[in-house]
This record gives sequence, C-alpha cells and structure tokens, in this order.
Amino acid sequence: MPWTEWITIENTKQINKMNIMNVFKLILTTLLSLTILAVQADDRPNIIVILADDLGYNDVGFTGATSINTPNLDALAAGGVIFENGYVTHPYCGPSRAGLLTGRYQARFGMENNVTYNPYDPNMGLPVSEKTFAKRLQEVGYKTAVIGKWHLGGATHFQPNSRGFDYFYGFLDGGHHYFPEQTTINADGYALPLMRNKEVVTFDEYLTTALSRDAANFITNHSTLEEHPPFMMYLSYNAPHAPLQAPSHTIKKYAHIKNPKRQIYAAMVDEMDQGIGMVVDALKQHGKYDNTLIFFLSDNGGLYPDSWWPQFDWADNSPYRHGKVALLEGGVKVPFIAHWPAKIVKGQRFDGLVSALDIAATSVHLAGADDSDNTLEGKNLTPYVTGKNNGSPHKALFWRLEEADDIWAVRTMESKYMKQGLPGVNRAFFDMKSDPTEQHNIVDSNLIEQSKLADLWNAWNSKNINNILLQSNEYKREKANFYQTLYEKNVQQAQKRTPYKVQ
Amino acid sequence: MPWTEWITIENTKQINKMNIMNVFKLILTTLLSLTILAVQADDRPNIIVILADDLGYNDVGFTGATSINTPNLDALAAGGVIFENGYVTHPYCGPSRAGLLTGRYQARFGMENNVTYNPYDPNMGLPVSEKTFAKRLQEVGYKTAVIGKWHLGGATHFQPNSRGFDYFYGFLDGGHHYFPEQTTINADGYALPLMRNKEVVTFDEYLTTALSRDAANFITNHSTLEEHPPFMMYLSYNAPHAPLQAPSHTIKKYAHIKNPKRQIYAAMVDEMDQGIGMVVDALKQHGKYDNTLIFFLSDNGGLYPDSWWPQFDWADNSPYRHGKVALLEGGVKVPFIAHWPAKIVKGQRFDGLVSALDIAATSVHLAGADDSDNTLEGKNLTPYVTGKNNGSPHKALFWRLEEADDIWAVRTMESKYMKQGLPGVNRAFFDMKSDPTEQHNIVDSNLIEQSKLADLWNAWNSKNINNILLQSNEYKREKANFYQTLYEKNVQQAQKRTPYKVQ
Repeated sequence: MPWTEWITIENTKQINKMNIMNVFKLILTTLLSLTILAVQADDRPNIIVILADDLGYNDVGFTGATSINTPNLDALAAGGVIFENGYVTHPYCGPSRAGLLTGRYQARFGMENNVTYNPYDPNMGLPVSEKTFAKRLQEVGYKTAVIGKWHLGGATHFQPNSRGFDYFYGFLDGGHHYFPEQTTINADGYALPLMRNKEVVTFDEYLTTALSRDAANFITNHSTLEEHPPFMMYLSYNAPHAPLQAPSHTIKKYAHIKNPKRQIYAAMVDEMDQGIGMVVDALKQHGKYDNTLIFFLSDNGGLYPDSWWPQFDWADNSPYRHGKVALLEGGVKVPFIAHWPAKIVKGQRFDGLVSALDIAATSVHLAGADDSDNTLEGKNLTPYVTGKNNGSPHKALFWRLEEADDIWAVRTMESKYMKQGLPGVNRAFFDMKSDPTEQHNIVDSNLIEQSKLADLWNAWNSKNINNILLQSNEYKREKANFYQTLYEKNVQQAQKRTPYKVQ
Repeated sequence: MPWTEWITIENTKQINKMNIMNVFKLILTTLLSLTILAVQADDRPNIIVILADDLGYNDVGFTGATSINTPNLDALAAGGVIFENGYVTHPYCGPSRAGLLTGRYQARFGMENNVTYNPYDPNMGLPVSEKTFAKRLQEVGYKTAVIGKWHLGGATHFQPNSRGFDYFYGFLDGGHHYFPEQTTINADGYALPLMRNKEVVTFDEYLTTALSRDAANFITNHSTLEEHPPFMMYLSYNAPHAPLQAPSHTIKKYAHIKNPKRQIYAAMVDEMDQGIGMVVDALKQHGKYDNTLIFFLSDNGGLYPDSWWPQFDWADNSPYRHGKVALLEGGVKVPFIAHWPAKIVKGQRFDGLVSALDIAATSVHLAGADDSDNTLEGKNLTPYVTGKNNGSPHKALFWRLEEADDIWAVRTMESKYMKQGLPGVNRAFFDMKSDPTEQHNIVDSNLIEQSKLADLWNAWNSKNINNILLQSNEYKREKANFYQTLYEKNVQQAQKRTPYKVQ
C-alpha cells in the first residue's frame, strides 16, 4: 500500500469518531497533506538486506579473501561502511534469521533451533505472535519482497505472504538444490519447486542466478509502478550453504584452489557476488542506487571442520576460531556492511558492536514505521554511520544456544565471557581489545569483570523464555515414530477385531 | 526393458549355475530364440485401461445417457463389448483402485479406506508386499505408463515409478484442481503441481485435456521407439470427480440441463470423452488401433445425494439405486467396456459377472506374464469376449466395506445378499434376474439361498485380513493431534526447565 493511501485510510478510520465539523477540518487537513506529499516525493530510502548462508568470515574480498573474487561486494564495502564488529544473534540459520527478521533476540520467543519444513504442522514456524520488520514497513507503504530462502515455516500462516511480504520468490525450507533438474515432489523440501507468492514455479538456471535475476526484475518492475513507494527487499541467498553445487565453468575459475570442495564453494560465492552485481546494476539503471540502503551479511559463520563434522572443510573463518554452531567469533562474527550513497560516507570502517538486530531497528526508523510496542532490540544505526555518534551502538551483545545445555556468551567492547564445550574452550574469557581473535583464554583471572558480564547476561536472560522447538533430527524422529506407532496400532487393532460372519 | 533384453538377462543369471557344455547349449538356444523373436514381431496387444472417477452409471451414451454427449466412448462401446454386469471391488476410489491394479480383492491386504496423501508416512500407501499388474507386465517387456490420478501413496517407495510403471504423468493425491492457476505448494495434494516421473511439471490447460494430450503423446513417442515392445497404459482420470470445474465453453453446451452443478459435471464428462477421442486418434494414426485392448470403466458409482451429503446431486446412476459408498448396484456396478478390433467382435453385450479384477488377469494372460504366485483373483476374459465361453466368468462377486461396521454384499448371477445401513435397505436380498435394479427387498423369504450366499461370503472373507488404514478424516485428526501434543509437550518441558544462571 503506498504511503499516501495509508494516510488516507488511517484518517478514514478516525472519521467515525468525530463530529461533522471536525470531519470537514480533517478533510481539509488531509487534502493539504496529500498535496504536500504529492509535491514532496517520498524520499524514504529503499532497503535491501542481502543475506549469505554459511559464508566464511574470510571468504569475501573486503574481509581479506584473496582466493575468491567478490568484486561487487567489495565495491559496496568500499562505497559504504564495513562493520568490523558485526554479529548475528545465533551461530546457525533458523534462529539467526528469526532474530534478523523480527529485530528481536529469538530467545525472547523460544525459537532457538531450526524450523523443520513441514506444511502440516501449524506450530512449526516463526510464532505468529512475532511481527517481522517487513510487516512494520508494509504498514507504512513499503513494498516488501523476500527472494530466496525462507526457513521460517511451511504452513500457510507461516509463509512470507502471511508475514509482511507483498512478494515472495523462493523456497520454504532451509536450503535447496541448485540445479533445476533436481526438482521433484517428495518429503524433501530441498527438492521442491520454487514458489512465486502462492504459485508454483520452475526455474531453468543455476538457482543463485535465478534468485538474483528475480531480485533485479523486482527492482525493474517496481520502477514501472505509477506510484513510487519505497521498497524493502530481503534477498536471502542459500549460497554458499551445502549442497556444494556450482556451474562447472565457474568452478574452473578456481582451479588454483587445491581442496576440490573449496573450489565449488568458491564458485558458489562467486556466483552470489555476480548476482549481487545484477541487483546493483538494476538499481543504477533505474536511478535507485543513491537512495537505497543495502545491508550485506551472513547468517552465521562458515562451516568449520570440527570433530563432529570433519568433512566440512571448505570455508575460511580466519582469523577467527571455529565457525558455524560455535559462539566463538568464527560462528557469530560475520562479514557485514552497509551501503547508502545518499547518506553514508564511503570508505568507513566502524568498530562499534553492531548486531543483525539493528537492521530491523534502522529500517523501521528510516521508514517511520511503528515501533511503539517497544519490542525491537536493535539500534538505529543511522547516527553511527553518518558520523553523528562515534560510540558503540550496543553496550553488550548476548547469545544463548540450546539453553538446556548451558551454552552462552556475552561480549562488550572490551571483553567476551562464554561457555561452550568446544575443543579447548568450555568456559572462557577473552580480552577483545588485545586479543580479538580469542587466542588466549584468561578465564582464571579477571573475575570481577566476569561477574559483571555474568550479571549482564543473567539480566538479559531473565527476559527470555526457554527454547520450544525440537532440533530437526529429533523432530523427524518424533514424526517417524508417530507414523510407525499409528500404523502398528492400526494393525494391532485390526488383528484384535473378530472377523465378521454373515449368519 | 524390451522383451528380448529381458530374456537375455534372465538367461545370463542362470549361467552361473551351469557347466560349460550347458552354457554353449544355452547360448545356441538363446541365439535361436532371439532370431525367432526378431523375425516374429511381438504381437502381444497394447493394453489401455481408462478409468473414470465417480462417473454415474447413466452418464455415458452407451448406458443410456441422453443429456451428456460421449461419442468417443459410445464408438468404443459399439465397436467392442459392453459388460452389462461389470463391477468394481469397492464403492469408492482408493480401495477400488487398489483392487484394479493388483488384481486382488483389496481386503486381502486390509486396504479398505482411501490412502491419504502424505509423503512423510512410509506406511500410507498400497502395501509394498503387493504387486501391481503393471509390474508383472513390465517384467515381460511391456512399457508401462500411468497418466493421471495415483492415490496409492505419496512416499517415494509408493510412487508409480516404484510400483511397476516406467512412466508417470499426473498427481499422487486422490484428486486435483482442474485449472493450472490453482497450483501451489502447501499441505493440499489437490493443489500440488503435476509430476512427470520424479520431475515436477506445470500444466497450462484444463487438466483432463492435459492428461489426455499426454496419453496421446505417450502413444506417439512409443511409436518412434526403434524396438516396438507393446505398452500398457493406465489412463486414470480424476474426471468427473469433484471439485466441479470445467471450461466455460463446454459448460455452455449443457445449458439445457437445469441443475447448474450437473451442467458442469456434464462438461467434465464431455471433456473426458473428447480426451479419449485424442487417445483413440493417436492409436489410429500410429497403426495401433487394431491391436490395442482398451478397457473403460469407472472406479465406483456416481455420487448420490444421500442424507449425509444431500448437496451431491449431479450424477445419474439410474436405473440403479444410490451411488458412491453404497453396496447397492448404484455404488459398484459401473459403465464397463472392452474394445479390441483384432480379437473382439463388435456390438456385443455380455451379461456374465465381470469384475475390475479381471483387467489384471486378462492383461497378465495376454502378456504372458508371471502369475505363478497364484494371487490374482480375476478371470482372463479373453475366452468370454471372443465367444469361446458363454458362461459367467465369476460364480460370485464379493464386497466388504469398513469391515468393523459389518457392511457386506455378495452377488451371483441369480441373487444378491447384502447388509448396509442405507435408508430402506439394511439387510437385503434381491432376485437379480427378475429385479436387477434392486427395487424389492425379499430378505424375509429365500432363507436357504441366503444361507448359501452367506457361506460363500464367509469362505471368501476367511482369507481377508481386517482393514488397516484409517479413514482420511481420522488420519488427519490423529496427525493434527500429534503435532499439537508434541508442541504442547515441548512448551511444557521448556517451562519446567529452570532458567540457567551464569555464576
């Protein structure tokens, strides 16, 4: 709904409550406002959130990659601000995305495991009690789109069109095969066809390219609208998440990489970067480049070949330790940039604590959307990236993983205090100023600082609820048990019944 | 696999068991057989089984319809044999199809309810212990295809390609929306896209036409094969099953029908008949018309507006009583014909008891396929339709519905004895010679005959097992309960856990 229409409708609602004189007054005022709005073009920025999936910290040029080419991302980084302490709220996909989209720590609503794709389960998804920031923006006239991976529920009431998105092109599960010929209909969400809103659509090229092309087309189509409301696009790549699949001609570009898995992975990142180039080109072509705020980040760290999955050895999170699933920096610190030529001075590096939560808060602020429910937990980053505030947006950031298992972390600008049963870690304290890569666990000293951080974490956690979702493998086991038990019960009951005899 | 290849491979398997002299002997014999086979073209007939869905007995021209045009079906009927006592084994879809495809009474394997589409349930489908006659034909070189409604299981091991069909185009659930724009991905199998084998495909015309076109294309493509094995095609229409949907230009042809629902229904039957015309044309065009045996029948009677679904008033089962779900003739006697110019003299009417089970038995016989497991329960109809045997193929036919509720029927050429709690029926005995439309329940006399029929039914039933499948609504309720219970358990467990405190 365009911005101006929204005002009209809101005002119309109020009419019933007023007397006739006030109505005339209101009409006059409204007409006046509409005239002003018609003259003053809506100058709120478009917002694009580009999310990579399981991307290693060191696997884009702007964080240091030398063996993978990401010229388009590097240009955005150079033209905007690089968040050197940019974090996600969870070290793996589903919960991280739930935090990003709601702008709230997902522990507030107990969503700390991946949603398992299941169209039959009315409780398996981002709780409907939560509001996405897309919904908030939609309410004030933004055209909202999600392109790519959803991973927040398969039942109709969890699907993007029910969660604040005008437009959806992509898939509902937590990943997807990259080549069209793998598409089929069975229990595997990775293999299902794509959807455009509620419609089933096939795709006929490499998935990352198909998503990028659709994103570019969305911008083109949006430019042809008679009214020009701003848009918010959540371009949610599954790249470079497994399965490792890429066009062979792109893999060939990485023949210099010895690890054949990393060759494919590099090609996946390369294709994503090319796709981002298509999106940027569309913005430029339609005069939207200057006033579009682009965020780019990964939903968590790249896979790290830990003992429980030694074969996952293709990503590079250096200089940070471990990766996906870890609360060490390798799992939660991500390549994270913002780009907005109209407002953000290029070439900045910002070292304050920035969270994926801030994307919602910033967007809601810029759109003039409603946050009067006071549930948003991110910070509006605008003053920080426009040089008006040099402090850290957050005093502290918090993590909690599988709460029942006692895995947690808290970091301030100065320190990080955490516990996780990782090789050589368990309970740890790091001086983040002198040791940002967490090489030296100094948990045996700094007890006072630890106590302060513990208090911060406990205060934060007192507002959380415990995790409700089952992990995917447990959930699938419960489901399989249910079907088997139901079948066996039916067989037993059938066997118990005395066969009928016609007398 | 072509017929000749099959022989080669089977023989190869035996080679290991023989001494070297025998091997030479075998090779010589095999070469000789292959030569003979190469010279003698394979003259086994193609077989097409066309199944309508919920078609009223009196809704095709050859059974008496005057308000619906079915010229193509009428031509097949006139050119072949009309089975005036042709029956299915169950008065509704799933079990009836299970009987048809296995050639066995479905009560033998406890499948007496509809399969609910569910790709996650490894037990919700035609038991893998059962062999379809497609599989038997495939084993002796027939190319086998199913086009249309499957309804025998959604999990991969239940899908057509796993059950003896080389080719599948259609849908797995028990019905489908007829217009492409209703296609989506959610929990509703009626709305899912179509599949071609394992591949997802969209369709772009009225579904009945799309299925017919694909069937005609299958024949055309088959004709281009270098080797010419015969084919068996199961053309399983969902027409004219609900939802009532037809192209408006076809509905207009039936403006003379007063009931607007019957107008649409008539158009659905008309479209199916047109589609059958496309298939017949393809046979003629490729010189396959003469040596193709076509069966046409419905999977059960048309819907009848019984008290529990008074709104279902569009089909016409006259002169028979009731319809779908009833064991009266209206539910189980169906329009049923066979057409095979090469062998069946045209213009025949046959009044012996014929069963849908006979399709498998006849096909297996004509293909020279294996039935040495002695599980097939139908009769080879060839001697009956070629004038070599004028008796009834079956002494008696049997039905059992929801065995736990005591609903059963048995009919011979002379009589029918049954029980079902239908208005004005319950326990009934009919003289089928003098009262083939079951107007006069004479259950209070003929006690000796009833006793004989009871013995027959009891003997038949002694080899059945009780029904194992839940009815669809019960199954869905169990599933919904499971998801709700699981969720509530997770919430409760989450609430019970003491929130962690960092010390």
